[in-house]
Amino acid sequence: MATKCIITGVPGVGKTTVITGALTKLEEMGVHYANISFGSFMFETALAEELVRNRDEMRLLGKDDQKSLQRKAASAIATIDGNVIVDTHASVKTPKGYLPGLPEWVLEALMPDLFVLIETDEDQILGRRLGDPSRVRDMDSYRALASHQSFNRAIAAAYAMKTGCTVAIVTNADLLLDRAIDDLAGLLE
Amino acid sequence: MATKCIITGVPGVGKTTVITGALTKLEEMGVHYANISFGSFMFETALAEELVRNRDEMRLLGKDDQKSLQRKAASAIATIDGNVIVDTHASVKTPKGYLPGLPEWVLEALMPDLFVLIETDEDQILGRRLGDPSRVRDMDSYRALASHQSFNRAIAAAYAMKTGCTVAIVTNADLLLDRAIDDLAGLLE
Amino acid sequence: MATKCIITGVPGVGKTTVITGALTKLEEMGVHYANISFGSFMFETALAEELVRNRDEMRLLGKDDQKSLQRKAASAIATIDGNVIVDTHASVKTPKGYLPGLPEWVLEALMPDLFVLIETDEDQILGRRLGDPSRVRDMDSYRALASHQSFNRAIAAAYAMKTGCTVAIVTNADLLLDRAIDDLAGLLE
Repeated sequence: MATKCIITGVPGVGKTTVITGALTKLEEMGVHYANISFGSFMFETALAEELVRNRDEMRLLGKDDQKSLQRKAASAIATIDGNVIVDTHASVKTPKGYLPGLPEWVLEALMPDLFVLIETDEDQILGRRLGDPSRVRDMDSYRALASHQSFNRAIAAAYAMKTGCTVAIVTNADLLLDRAIDDLAGLLE
Repeated sequence: MATKCIITGVPGVGKTTVITGALTKLEEMGVHYANISFGSFMFETALAEELVRNRDEMRLLGKDDQKSLQRKAASAIATIDGNVIVDTHASVKTPKGYLPGLPEWVLEALMPDLFVLIETDEDQILGRRLGDPSRVRDMDSYRALASHQSFNRAIAAAYAMKTGCTVAIVTNADLLLDRAIDDLAGLLE
Repeated sequence: MATKCIITGVPGVGKTTVITGALTKLEEMGVHYANISFGSFMFETALAEELVRNRDEMRLLGKDDQKSLQRKAASAIATIDGNVIVDTHASVKTPKGYLPGLPEWVLEALMPDLFVLIETDEDQILGRRLGDPSRVRDMDSYRALASHQSFNRAIAAAYAMKTGCTVAIVTNADLLLDRAIDDLAGLLE
């Protein structure tokens, strides 16, 4: 049985590092996953549909275009054979508030088996954001980050109600990356 | 593009004050919003449908009548041109528990763009309730209020999953009403 | 008006004790409830459909079989006349994360009026699990239990959005079982 898994985490939590580590471990065990970034996949879908010419234009799409694009991308991912990881966000922090990463129409198309929240202590996330000059990241306060992680847990529960998927929390604590990788690999094997 | 915005907050948080202040500020900037109380709008719909003769009879409506009334009111609001604020509750505390202010059938009719939770520290809300003898308000404990505000955040996440709306939190702290008004106006402009 | 009520609580919180006490009290008042365990009801449905021969085989059912079984059981419960309690879990802790007890297709069939979370302090639950050698129960940490109870509140909010049911929290604290029973009976009477 192929597994469709959505993996999320706030910026700076180390999501990519944990996914890469877990996928390496799983390959060694002979377990293969396609690893899809939902944002990039949507962009490629938009390019193919000639809705945009470059990534910047993605932000300019109207609400209905965006919605139909999300649905199309999700449906395309749903047709992929074998195990799939969809790398995305439970919610995105925007100037207008938390934007759900997986609104109902995306969930209905994807119907994931497993939803993973990669989390850690807010202080550790703040430290990682400060130490990452290569990316411009929002300098949230401790409280704002705690609020965002807490909102992500709540919306993950709504995603589970909608799809029946399980919701697993993987902690990516400082100095314990190996454990986070093992935990994620354990969920995916 | 017109914005449909739902604004909520527990009794005593100062929702009306913040909305009024933000609307005044927005009018000065030339931005207009229709400001609709969902409860009053439902009552007027019920009157027009001759389902009730006065407000007290609203509580006596059967479950199915209430549901169809909610749906009708939401659909009528959805047809309003231009920007709309719907002033309502994320959930209402009743003797039978928290009643969702926006069940699925209301959300499907309204499809809001933005959902706002006006919040503040529970102690401040308790203080405001004590200082407001003009209205009979439930004297919750600190814990009960914290539980209610936390439930409202969780159900707001479910509303976002259902509609794709963003969820913004505006803090209306003691002595900082101006900031709350600015924050809300910023979300609506 | 008949009431359909879903009652949930993490293992060790004393759910069965509180339900039994409340039902006894209600019978004395002349109020009758059918008390249905959702898990057992699903198993009997599966037996009748010849999908399984014993309880152990329930775990081996494919995802689609499980889903259709859940839907069938929920629809059968929905046709029961009179008041009904459905004894189940808001979410079940599994090796793959929290599994929603009432995914959308179950809620759509059941459409409950009332959803009850029986809760208490995590330390008290840990103590009760330790003191119950008759049942093999997962020895969670304090934090894991707090996380589970918090997830259950969040998913209860999603259930309320979906169905319009109220969500009530009944605290079953040490030494205060009578109060928990009174609270639950008060919700059901």
